[in-house]
Formats: sequence, C-alpha cells, structure tokens
Amino acid sequence: MRTRSTSSTPRPWPPSVPEPGSTIAERDDGAASAAEQRPAERPPAWPHRHLLDTDVLTWPQIELVLDTADVMGEIVARRRPRSEVMRGIGVTNLFFEASTRTRVSFEVAAKHLSADVVNVSVSGSSVEKGESLLDTMRTLESLGTRVLVIRHATSGAPYLVARESRGSVINAGDGRHAHPTQALLDLYTLRLHVPGGSLRGRKVVVLGDVLHSRVARSNLWTLTAAGADVWLCGPVTLLRGFEAWAATGVGGERRFTVTSDIAAALRDADAVMALRLQQERMAAGLLPSLHEYSARFGLTAERLRLAREGCLVLHPGPMNEGVEIAPEVAAGPRSLVTEQVANGVAIRMAVLSLVTSVSMRGEA
Amino acid sequence: MRTRSTSSTPRPWPPSVPEPGSTIAERDDGAASAAEQRPAERPPAWPHRHLLDTDVLTWPQIELVLDTADVMGEIVARRRPRSEVMRGIGVTNLFFEASTRTRVSFEVAAKHLSADVVNVSVSGSSVEKGESLLDTMRTLESLGTRVLVIRHATSGAPYLVARESRGSVINAGDGRHAHPTQALLDLYTLRLHVPGGSLRGRKVVVLGDVLHSRVARSNLWTLTAAGADVWLCGPVTLLRGFEAWAATGVGGERRFTVTSDIAAALRDADAVMALRLQQERMAAGLLPSLHEYSARFGLTAERLRLAREGCLVLHPGPMNEGVEIAPEVAAGPRSLVTEQVANGVAIRMAVLSLVTSVSMRGEA
Amino acid sequence: MRTRSTSSTPRPWPPSVPEPGSTIAERDDGAASAAEQRPAERPPAWPHRHLLDTDVLTWPQIELVLDTADVMGEIVARRRPRSEVMRGIGVTNLFFEASTRTRVSFEVAAKHLSADVVNVSVSGSSVEKGESLLDTMRTLESLGTRVLVIRHATSGAPYLVARESRGSVINAGDGRHAHPTQALLDLYTLRLHVPGGSLRGRKVVVLGDVLHSRVARSNLWTLTAAGADVWLCGPVTLLRGFEAWAATGVGGERRFTVTSDIAAALRDADAVMALRLQQERMAAGLLPSLHEYSARFGLTAERLRLAREGCLVLHPGPMNEGVEIAPEVAAGPRSLVTEQVANGVAIRMAVLSLVTSVSMRGEA
Repeated sequence: MRTRSTSSTPRPWPPSVPEPGSTIAERDDGAASAAEQRPAERPPAWPHRHLLDTDVLTWPQIELVLDTADVMGEIVARRRPRSEVMRGIGVTNLFFEASTRTRVSFEVAAKHLSADVVNVSVSGSSVEKGESLLDTMRTLESLGTRVLVIRHATSGAPYLVARESRGSVINAGDGRHAHPTQALLDLYTLRLHVPGGSLRGRKVVVLGDVLHSRVARSNLWTLTAAGADVWLCGPVTLLRGFEAWAATGVGGERRFTVTSDIAAALRDADAVMALRLQQERMAAGLLPSLHEYSARFGLTAERLRLAREGCLVLHPGPMNEGVEIAPEVAAGPRSLVTEQVANGVAIRMAVLSLVTSVSMRGEA
Repeated sequence: MRTRSTSSTPRPWPPSVPEPGSTIAERDDGAASAAEQRPAERPPAWPHRHLLDTDVLTWPQIELVLDTADVMGEIVARRRPRSEVMRGIGVTNLFFEASTRTRVSFEVAAKHLSADVVNVSVSGSSVEKGESLLDTMRTLESLGTRVLVIRHATSGAPYLVARESRGSVINAGDGRHAHPTQALLDLYTLRLHVPGGSLRGRKVVVLGDVLHSRVARSNLWTLTAAGADVWLCGPVTLLRGFEAWAATGVGGERRFTVTSDIAAALRDADAVMALRLQQERMAAGLLPSLHEYSARFGLTAERLRLAREGCLVLHPGPMNEGVEIAPEVAAGPRSLVTEQVANGVAIRMAVLSLVTSVSMRGEA
Repeated sequence: MRTRSTSSTPRPWPPSVPEPGSTIAERDDGAASAAEQRPAERPPAWPHRHLLDTDVLTWPQIELVLDTADVMGEIVARRRPRSEVMRGIGVTNLFFEASTRTRVSFEVAAKHLSADVVNVSVSGSSVEKGESLLDTMRTLESLGTRVLVIRHATSGAPYLVARESRGSVINAGDGRHAHPTQALLDLYTLRLHVPGGSLRGRKVVVLGDVLHSRVARSNLWTLTAAGADVWLCGPVTLLRGFEAWAATGVGGERRFTVTSDIAAALRDADAVMALRLQQERMAAGLLPSLHEYSARFGLTAERLRLAREGCLVLHPGPMNEGVEIAPEVAAGPRSLVTEQVANGVAIRMAVLSLVTSVSMRGEA
C-alpha cells in the first residue's frame, strides 16, 4: 500500500469531527522571516480567540506562535521565570482524561504568566452528577474562567464548548481528533534542530498508530504547512481512511504520503516521530500482538540507519519503550523527547497569551 | 395537601441535625437600609466565627453579607480582580463529595482575596486510611488552615468540626441539611432583580425535591427572614415532614406554605427556584419515574405563564434540563442561573472575609 | 525476647532497600551548639542535593536542619507567613499513595517559601497509562520541577528517581523503608520539650508495628544520632529482623534495644512514640486481632504510669485511637501529636530550602 498526494484541496478526516474547517492558507516560505513578508502589518495580527486545531492556522500565524514561544523560552530559562502578561486572568484546566504532562505543562505555563489557575478533573467533579459539558463550561466562565483548557475523550468536544464560550478555549487533546499545542511544540522543536531552521522539503515520518492519533492529525497540518515532505507509516489496519484521504489529496504544495512500508518511509528521513501505541488496540483486534507490532514497526537503532545521518527522533510521550521505540533510540543522541516536553511550556505560554490577547481586545 | 403557617416559633427539621439553634431574630424591614437602622453601631458587627447555616443569621447580619458582596462584586468585575484582605491566610477546601461549582467558587473567591488555598478531596486523601473527621480538621489547622470550607455527605458534620475548631468553618453543603452560601447567593441575586430591591411580600416558590434539598432548607431561613412569602412545592413524597413543620409554624411574621398543588404555588409568583432532582430518588421508590415527575412538576414555559409577568427563575445547578426545568426556561430571558454562579464568588468572598475578621479579632 | 546493642557498625535493614549507605557519622554532643564546634566553617555546609533518608545525615547536619527549622518556625508564626527564599522555584508533590497531612504539609511549606507548587497524584495522572516512574520524573523536570517530593508504595523508589534526577528529590515516604522529614520533625518536637534540649541518654520508646514502619526506621537513625537510648517494642511478629540487626549492633555509641516486653520498654521512659497499626496486618496473619493487640501493646494511661513523670507522647498520625493509643493519652497533656504536625511545616521548609541551596549552588 502506498498512496501519494501532491494536489487538490484538503478533505477532513471523516469520523465525527465537527467544524473541520480545513482552511489552511498557502504557506509562505518558511525560510523567509515573518517581518520581511509583512512590512506594513507587524506584528502580524493573531485572529483566533480559540485554538481547537492547527488546520485553521496560516503559516504566518504558525510562525507567530513559534516566534512568541522563542520569547517565552527566554522567560522560562530565567532562574525565576515570571511574566505579568496574564496577571489576574482566570485559566481553568478541565481534564476529562488522565494526564500528567499536558495538564502540568499548561499549569506551569499559565503560572509563569501570572494567571490564576484552577484544575478541574473529572474524578471528584460534579460531572459525575450528570452535568452537561456546556453547563460545566458556562459555570466555569461565570466563576471567572477566561481561558478554558480542555481535554476530552470525545472528538470534537472542545468545538462544542467553543461555540458557546464567551472566553477562549484551548484544545488539550480531544479523542482521536486533534492536539494542536502538541503539534506546535513538535514543529518548534524540529525547527530548532533542522539545519537552516526550515522544514521546507525535509522528509518527516510519523510512525505508528496513525489511525487513533490526535497527535498525528494535528501534526499533519503544521508539518505540511511548513513545507515538509510528510510520510505517515504504520500497519495497514492503523492507516485506514488515510489512504483515501491522501488519494484525493490535501491541496496546494502539500506533500503527504501514506505507506505501510517502513523501509521506504525511513529511507533518507530527516526526522521520525514515533507515536504511542495504545494497548487497547490489541483488544480491538487491530493488531496481532505487541511483540509483532514491535518487530515490524518499532523504531530501532538498526532501522534508524536507513534514515539520513543525524535524523531527529521525536515522541509525544508517554513512551512504551521496547514497543514503538527502542530504549536506546529513546535515550539516544538524536532523541528530542525531553526537549519536546520543555518546549511545550514555551509553546503553551505563547498560545495562552495569543488567545487571551484576542479575547481581551474586545473589552479594552 | 396544603398547610399554611404564619405564627408560633421555629422548629428545626428533625433528622439528625446538631445545633439547629433556630434563633432567627425578627426581621427589619428589608427596604430600610442597615445604616438607617443602626446609626450608633456602623458598620454592624459580624459575630460569627463560623457559617454553618443561615438559621442563626439576623436580618441585619444577612444584609451585611449582601452589602459586603456588593463591594466584592466590584473587585470581581475588575479586569484583574485582587484584594489583599486575606493575604497569607490559609484556606482549605475539604470536600468529601464531588463538586465543581462550589469548590471552584470558593477557590476563586479565596484567591481573589489573596488567601493561600489548599484543596483536599476525599479521593487521594488519607481519610481513606480511616482518619477521623476531627483528626483531619486538627491536622489541617495545625498545618496553618485558618478557614476550613467543608462539604460532607453527612448532615451536621460541619457542626461537629466547628465545635472543636480553633479557626473558622464554612459549611459548603452537608448532606440534606444546609448550604448557607448557596442561600445567600440566591437571595443576593433575587435582591438585584426584584423591583425595588426588597423581597418583602414577594411570592417565592421553591419547587421540587424539597425533602432532600439542603438548598431548600437554607433558603427557607433567608427568604423568610427577608419577608418573602415562601411556597414549598413538590410531590407529596418529597415534602414529608415539612407539612408538620409548617403546621406548627415557623414563627413571627414568617410566611411559609407547603403544597403539592403546582398551579396554586406558581400563581402570581415573583420568583421560582427549581431544585435539582437526584436520580437516586427513583431507586428509593419515592417517585414513579423521571417522566412522570417532569410531566407533573417540571418548570415549563407553559406553567410559568401562571406566574407574574417577569417572574424570575433560579436553579442552584447542576441542572437536569428536561427534568425539573425545561431547556427553554433554563436558557430563557427570566433565568438567573448563570448570574447565580457569578454572584456566588462575591458572596463567598464576603463570607470568607467576614468570618476571618472574627477569628483574627481575637489575635490582633 | 530482648536484644541489646551498644557496639559495632551499622547494618542496613535487609528488605529490598537500594543505596542504604549507612554512613552515619559519629555524633557530636547534642548539648554543644553547632557554632561552638565549627568556628571556621559557619554556617555549616549542607552537602545533600536530595533527602532520601536520615541515615546519611551527620549530627551537625541534623542540627543544621533543626536550627533552620527554628528560623522557619518564626516565619510560620507570623500573621501572614511568607519568605522569598524559593520565589519562582518549581516544587512538585508526586504522590503515589493517598496522603493528606504530608502532601498538604509540603504544599504549605513550599508556598510559605514562595515556591511554585504543582500537585500530581496517581489517580488522574498518566501513570495510569503505564508511564514509567523515571519518565514521569524526567517529564516533570523538563516542565520546570526543581524539587520533587515523592511518596511511593515501593521501598527505594525515591532512590531510583534521585539517581537520574537533575534537581532535588525529597522522600516523603517510600513503602516500609524511610520517612526522613517525619523523623526530623519528631526529633525537632522532642528537642523542644525534653528538659535541657538534648536527647543524650534519654530513653525513647518506639512502640508498635516496627516491622512495617518507615517512620520507625528513619527515627532510629536520628534518635540514635542524637544520643538517645532507643527501645523498639512490639509483638514478636512485628519486630522480626530487628533482633538480628540489634544483635550485631548499630555501631559507635548508639544505644538500641529490641524487646516485646512493654513493661521493660516503658519503665522510666522519657518519651514514647506510638506507631500506627495498619489494619492490613491482621489479614496477613501477623496479629490475632485488633483487640488482642490493643490489650497487649496499646499505649494506655495506666501503662504510661510506668514511664517517667512528664513522659512525652508522640504519634506520626493518622491515629487509630483505641487501638495503638488510648484516646485519653492521645488528647492528654503529655501528647505532642498536634505540635508534631505544626512542626512538620517548619521542618519541611528547612529541608526544601537546604536541598535547593545545593542544587542552585551549581548554577550560580
């Protein structure tokens, strides 16, 4: 199986995803600076009150996030990181799924910006009493929440919430649909390490359980917007639907290949992003066994030799070492896994301050 | 069934409620300002180190809470709400029941006042190890808690805690007994919207599962203290005990009617407060079915036409829309549900600062 | 059964405890001040980036913790306790076991020092997704955690974490192994109340389920380092292993006796520390019944008459009143239980600031 796409317009991934709005604008050249391109309108305006997915972001907007994250990264690097940008602004982490890294990342990012952070997790919340998601949102906004960071097991849930919200909604992962801040931190991390600082024409492989991965979906938008040559690779059963999507094309100059041939995918790759394999997939009969998966699609040091020298390795975490990624690769010199986590704080600070700037603008 | 009461002294609601102390003082005229009434002692002293229920509050004390909430509301309305009133004071939310709105409301209120807030919920606490409630309180006070906000499934639990406490205890809901800050925010919200700003002589209906509602109990004290003509309405099985109580009367000029005739209750009402119907009531055999309940006692737009034009609609939340309240009523122009939540922050700021002023007085 | 030890070198307690490193230095005279002993190097250097157990602490280091806690105690006693010592430093409480007092104690301590505190508990964290302990630690450090306070059901887990940590690790209780801040606060509390302020030669009894107690283990190191005459007392089944350990001796001038004769243990005791009896021990067949245990080893007022007049009573909490300690003893005039909790905040502030001073030193 191998499908290639280089033309026509984007089609959203079918399953139950509201407001796909695949309106990615044509990319600027990633190598040219944002300032050079928009002399009259600097800094470029950020129009999004919410961040629900990366599909609606133009390349200049993506660059704005990354450039803002650069500034935020300098704050984080201080011995005592603290900015006043969101002093007194209410931020609520509303998590309907277990999470350490994403919840703490948003919490730390918001605190660095002096926001007032409240955590609400499903266990121990009145959602158990049957309160609807929209009621919960309205309640939190009435209590002073200006930015709602939401993780939910149902694809599209943050869109439903955003439609009724008076503040800002940031999607921290919804079902198998989207995880925009993860995609942005992945791109940010890649940009810092790719020679020349541009992904244009670079071969980036997303390897593993693509079908169930919100990380893969959101990365597809940002990586292709950056001009990367994106390859999605995994077992046939975990690519289903993407071939058809790729066959109709994702539009413009986007380059996007779907394959289950791991050797073809890894050959001369500039970067590989291994995806977490959810153990639940076995039960669903989509995979014969973990061992089988690991043997055929695990990212091992040996396989990595097919890639370009210095090929970068990413993983959104948490990793199943020995399954989708070998321990020596995860901890190897090309691995950016730890840096991804660290960069996540700067990216989330950037996103929090950008969406807040929009919702505050109306009130000023 | 219909019982009416306009005389004799208050009797506490029987089931296992310690320290009922039904010592509500005679009401002042709600229309007259507190300042006019007490020229020599202004501002009026707040004597309560704890807030366990509204039954012990005199009308001037209730007015003091509402007036303080007005000031707090101005702080909340600021772009960056923050007062220094409780800087460095330890506040602990000790929640033995799931809650989003009440816990977050207290947390936000305490943070607006610059208090140091700690959350302790049962899941994940050593209460699982069998530590007694009193030991937990003593431990938290030894760790610096000055104000303990407690929610507990057992009626009376906060009274037990308050008796041994060296600081302040605020009841955030105990079993079916009391929920004083909810009653105060309900009254505050009503006062803002009733023409003339006084509830004296206004007909206020509390509709639904009165029997199991701590919200109904605490509201009964504040609403009658405000001079409202209170009607409790619901199925006979969910009013049990209240008829007897009403038959003996609740004292003074308090007006208080118990009925299962919803048309009589709603006729010419100035405000209706729908109560949450706990799904567990079906299992207990107290109700035939949700559908039956909804058909006979649900607050629909049609039924609301019996009330006065502009009749206000309240609900303590979370709502079962389509059960005790129709969606179009919940979201209708007369609905104050969202404002109730917002006002809860100001009320809790008022209560936190008032009880703290008492416990700090002894030390100054 | 009675074994006594006054000589030879320390031997670590056998079961599965990594890096026991039983290198306790010879004690100084507890009565002499630290300043008198080290005129050239004052204040004494604190060399430990982590605090995993008390066994590696020299007596001057223990004194440094206690003296620092004295200073911290003055901050805590202020109306609005706040120091700037850890402003902007990330502290994460990573708790794999339920806890109220220890988690809140560390949270309050860190906030008093102006640290940025994040709580992560197992329920509601991605540890459920199978992330390894080391990955969790690395993730948290990448997110800005400088001090990781960890409680884990597995003995030795904090050692594993500390070995890979770039920051500081504080053991908040690991399995049955160690609970160093508890031992330090116990010693601090005793020192405040023992006449003369020194434990040298004082008889201190640790009573109860010694076998399963991390509190007993960590206390053994600090109490013997302080020159106390330590007696471990409990049912034979709950002392197993300690007799052998005692028989070979714990070294130097340490005095350490193991016995199941409670009368001998309590006779002329200056202090008794009752340990919590885990209900699980019954199921394991180590005890016939709670009643039997209570009858033979419960700390009653009558038994306490065997001890010296004014004998101090401690318990690490939470207490099973009526089992290992009688209610009248727990609440009696000799009981320091509440003060232990309060002192825990000062001790944890001292430990947090000391370990942070080491990890910051390298960066300055």
